[in-house]
Amino acid sequence: MTVGIVATIKIQAGKNAEFEAVAKEMMAAVRANEPGNKVYQFCKSKSDPTTYVVMELYADQAAMESHGKSDHFRSIGPKMGPFMAGRPDVAYYDAV
Amino acid sequence: MTVGIVATIKIQAGKNAEFEAVAKEMMAAVRANEPGNKVYQFCKSKSDPTTYVVMELYADQAAMESHGKSDHFRSIGPKMGPFMAGRPDVAYYDAV
Repeated sequence: MTVGIVATIKIQAGKNAEFEAVAKEMMAAVRANEPGNKVYQFCKSKSDPTTYVVMELYADQAAMESHGKSDHFRSIGPKMGPFMAGRPDVAYYDAV
Repeated sequence: MTVGIVATIKIQAGKNAEFEAVAKEMMAAVRANEPGNKVYQFCKSKSDPTTYVVMELYADQAAMESHGKSDHFRSIGPKMGPFMAGRPDVAYYDAV
């Protein structure tokens, strides 16, 4: 069953370019390495430029868990830390 | 430029089956009629069965606006109302 995540990420004001460069690197790595991933899209809020979400859909729970354990997630994810303002809020879903 | 929406919908307790039936009808109509839509997925929260999100991605702003004006959105959308608990929270995004 398809499962999803909406991760909400607050960044530090003015760090958009730096943050988005890492976000693009992560999206490229997910698309290249995770056949069980169906959607993985960073998006910037139109009303608050320090707020981003990541829309994520995976073919099944195993594919979602593989994402979190992947080498690219573990190597690229921490590169976002210096531009973030606090921990991401991660919400888990089952697709209808 | 790709744009997105995350709509958060609270439903009345116990109305999941009725709500999801309409959600499936809406997803099918969007997929059949909106070439500018790239993702349109209702998802149920794993932690709160009365909370849903809709992940939406559109090829451009015009495609997003067409969705809201479409016959299927206007005819199917109101069928969700009797199962909802308040107005949806709709957040707008630009894809990175």
